[in-house]
Amino acid sequence: MKTPTLGQLATENGAQVVGDPDLAVRGLAPLDQAGPDQLSFLSNPLYLAQAASSTAAAVIVSPADLERLRAEGHAEGRHWIVARNPYVVFARIAQRFDREANADLRTGIDARASVAADAVVPASCFIGPNVVIESGARLGERVRILANSFVGAGAQVGDDTLVYANVSIYHRCVVGARCILHSGVVIGADGFGFAPDIGPAGVEYVKIPQTGRAVLGNDVEVGANTAIDRGAMADTVIEDGCKLDNQVQIAHNVRVGAHTVIAGCAAIAGSTHVGRFCVIGGSANFAGHLNIADRTTVSGGTSITKSITKPGGHYTSVFPFLPHGEWEKNAAIVRGLSKLRERVMQIEKRLRGEGAGNRNTQEIEGKSS
Amino acid sequence: MKTPTLGQLATENGAQVVGDPDLAVRGLAPLDQAGPDQLSFLSNPLYLAQAASSTAAAVIVSPADLERLRAEGHAEGRHWIVARNPYVVFARIAQRFDREANADLRTGIDARASVAADAVVPASCFIGPNVVIESGARLGERVRILANSFVGAGAQVGDDTLVYANVSIYHRCVVGARCILHSGVVIGADGFGFAPDIGPAGVEYVKIPQTGRAVLGNDVEVGANTAIDRGAMADTVIEDGCKLDNQVQIAHNVRVGAHTVIAGCAAIAGSTHVGRFCVIGGSANFAGHLNIADRTTVSGGTSITKSITKPGGHYTSVFPFLPHGEWEKNAAIVRGLSKLRERVMQIEKRLRGEGAGNRNTQEIEGKSS
Amino acid sequence: MKTPTLGQLATENGAQVVGDPDLAVRGLAPLDQAGPDQLSFLSNPLYLAQAASSTAAAVIVSPADLERLRAEGHAEGRHWIVARNPYVVFARIAQRFDREANADLRTGIDARASVAADAVVPASCFIGPNVVIESGARLGERVRILANSFVGAGAQVGDDTLVYANVSIYHRCVVGARCILHSGVVIGADGFGFAPDIGPAGVEYVKIPQTGRAVLGNDVEVGANTAIDRGAMADTVIEDGCKLDNQVQIAHNVRVGAHTVIAGCAAIAGSTHVGRFCVIGGSANFAGHLNIADRTTVSGGTSITKSITKPGGHYTSVFPFLPHGEWEKNAAIVRGLSKLRERVMQIEKRLRGEGAGNRNTQEIEGKSS
Repeated sequence: MKTPTLGQLATENGAQVVGDPDLAVRGLAPLDQAGPDQLSFLSNPLYLAQAASSTAAAVIVSPADLERLRAEGHAEGRHWIVARNPYVVFARIAQRFDREANADLRTGIDARASVAADAVVPASCFIGPNVVIESGARLGERVRILANSFVGAGAQVGDDTLVYANVSIYHRCVVGARCILHSGVVIGADGFGFAPDIGPAGVEYVKIPQTGRAVLGNDVEVGANTAIDRGAMADTVIEDGCKLDNQVQIAHNVRVGAHTVIAGCAAIAGSTHVGRFCVIGGSANFAGHLNIADRTTVSGGTSITKSITKPGGHYTSVFPFLPHGEWEKNAAIVRGLSKLRERVMQIEKRLRGEGAGNRNTQEIEGKSS
Repeated sequence: MKTPTLGQLATENGAQVVGDPDLAVRGLAPLDQAGPDQLSFLSNPLYLAQAASSTAAAVIVSPADLERLRAEGHAEGRHWIVARNPYVVFARIAQRFDREANADLRTGIDARASVAADAVVPASCFIGPNVVIESGARLGERVRILANSFVGAGAQVGDDTLVYANVSIYHRCVVGARCILHSGVVIGADGFGFAPDIGPAGVEYVKIPQTGRAVLGNDVEVGANTAIDRGAMADTVIEDGCKLDNQVQIAHNVRVGAHTVIAGCAAIAGSTHVGRFCVIGGSANFAGHLNIADRTTVSGGTSITKSITKPGGHYTSVFPFLPHGEWEKNAAIVRGLSKLRERVMQIEKRLRGEGAGNRNTQEIEGKSS
Repeated sequence: MKTPTLGQLATENGAQVVGDPDLAVRGLAPLDQAGPDQLSFLSNPLYLAQAASSTAAAVIVSPADLERLRAEGHAEGRHWIVARNPYVVFARIAQRFDREANADLRTGIDARASVAADAVVPASCFIGPNVVIESGARLGERVRILANSFVGAGAQVGDDTLVYANVSIYHRCVVGARCILHSGVVIGADGFGFAPDIGPAGVEYVKIPQTGRAVLGNDVEVGANTAIDRGAMADTVIEDGCKLDNQVQIAHNVRVGAHTVIAGCAAIAGSTHVGRFCVIGGSANFAGHLNIADRTTVSGGTSITKSITKPGGHYTSVFPFLPHGEWEKNAAIVRGLSKLRERVMQIEKRLRGEGAGNRNTQEIEGKSS
């Protein structure tokens, strides 16, 4: 592990150095904590004052913020990495240090792993204790699978993917390259598909075999205890670059477009297609068989019950929280809203009667739905 | 694996053949994709035109739909399985093909499984690598338990039940026959039971041992990462034929009546009893100590806060989703709804004053809660 | 296992005996089921009649309830444990019986566990089959880790903590003493942290390494399939005495104050700090970067979108559930609430115009919004 210089870090990330490119940097820290051998970053102008007084070896800044610091006399004699998006450059440099500090250099198959004779496991892989890899499964180069995880028959895992402990990947499912699956993830369990039949006392359910797969693209991260079901006949698909947080539920035949992010506990019901570049808030839920346009933002806790056709919108459905006593009062009125509306209509009717020909009240009426 | 004939498939499902009963069928496919050796099905009259033009070997239809096809001249010279409920017959035939294609014929105990000396594991079972079966546990015939699952001391699993990888069944819990437990399922963890005690700075919690069991009936399917807690003293019970999707939460002492289906991420709090033949939408949540009548339908995302006594109802509690800006406006009004109602009352009062004895406004007032 | 006497049980819990302190007690049961060698408890005056007629050997009661029973002539010749909080004393005695009945006396490391040479595992611990304990991990005395669980490199687990099967504790995380982690729990997976970058077609995400830890205090219980992420740079912290139910989601850099309880499926987004002694209902969700005051109660299903500064409040945000048809009507009005409000304003304006100088309507207007 060789200490990188400011110049190296800038070059690796397409950024410029202002100051000494030979300066050695030993790690990253927030502006107010960074010591004289650490790099910091300024991604929000709110923290300009912190950047001005930071004791960091150097700071990653945008051209505009460096101008501001220079104008205020804080740039002279100091060292900078100048980048269009300092937060992204910070993230990439943080990855570099993290990789070096935490490199898991183990390779090979633990003596306690169970790997089927016909499974493909390159020598560059690490397979932890008690991992089970069933017949016909195929791993790419440098795949790491930590302890007690399961890879079903015929499943595929792409190059450089990291599978944490206690993950389950069902038979024939596909995980792309450079993915990260956190502990408790389940890929490819049966979708929730049943044919309703009339039983002697009510509707009973006959299982429909789920013969599709769950297919994840490249660069997908899946959070702890998230479940992505296999498709009924066709596949469930998570496209490249998607990031799913913990405890997310993806039902059968869902498609999530590339680079969409889904926060914790969100749930997407069967056959719903979510567009690309969407941002789905935590605990949001989607009904089944919907189409959600690209670049849609959905607030946390929101229920989406209809398709959204216009790209780029932001939608919310949360009842505003209130002190419980006030909520009770308002909830009672919500229960009787149609009566309240009726009362307003009666008043308008009466006033219309009184002021016949009054242009104003007719307009009002016209505006109401 | 012998290729079945149309006649066999019909007879097995109590259906009739119209056409050649000796026709061999090699699989199932949707109407628009089925080839000349595949069976398809028509369960929705919307797809009559697809059925008319399908190149499938044969199609499963209802008597009424076959009449329609016949009337339009599309039935002649073709082959049909005629059934009251084509979707159910499709599901059963799909199960048959799936069973043959994917039969897991492995039996026996993997050398890496840990089975207690006094556990009962018939020779017809398959116990995968790293499965742990503790003292006194008893499995029925043909039970399959995949890799890395855990069966606690004294637990029971009925005939033909399939337990996928990384499942945890706690001590003394009971799983019926023909059940399916998907990966990440936890049966019988402690219910959330604590006695509140006054500590020096506030209420602290003393654990109440959870000595009941979780008991699942026959033909229950439990989705990935669903948790069903054991009871506090009495048992938590999931009756026969229930289907639970992924990430469902069943708290202690809940009872779910037979043939009820619960979609993903729904949560049922402690001691609530849900009736038989209910349909619970995804992400719905129930308060504790409720009784929910048979055949109740609950929409996705709905919060049920009171008991429901009348069977067969359908309930919803979702704030309608809106573009965020509109939502903000409406949310502000919801927060002040009691003020809006007050204003309407003041108007009514004033108008009543103006039009004393006016029968109409008194009626309006009488209607309000 | 020696049968305890009433006197012993009372002394252990700082309570008094009224009656025979030498009476032997063989277990606990509800008032209406307890036999003549079992102890029962009365924690709710609603059940006074049951206490009066119970055939239990003795009953745990409050001083006030014993007075009532005495006044009604039901105390004479019977045996009582008198305690300020009978429910807490019941819980503690139930723990005592449960411990004796279900004592897991196993110690040592199962031959099928994988324990790193430099991990610290005292001889008083029990390490089940297929447990994996990685380099540098340190367990306290009497820690029990059941089958197929994972303890990452450098992680710490305190004295007397019980880890059920299929739990994952990531590298460097800390679990305190006397904790209980149920099956499927994931401690310390990566927080959901990404730097947004402009890609060719939209925003893409660059992973920010999550280098903090998840740190749990003492006496914390974590329910099945709950996930507590590690922090981004600083730690995620769950303080002493917290109780988390099943399927709870705790995002990175969250802090949950001591003795707070969180019911099933609740989700707390990144960097939110929840105070001490709070009660969070099931399926509640919190936005990120909030501060929630001590002793706050949040109803089940509620979305908390803003900080709460005043301690001890109770908040709710649930749309009241209704029969679906009524809900549809009210939902339509909610969608048009701003129009309804506009109509009321127009009426008020008109009436104001008619009754210029009318003090009453001006007051009303002043109260609005």
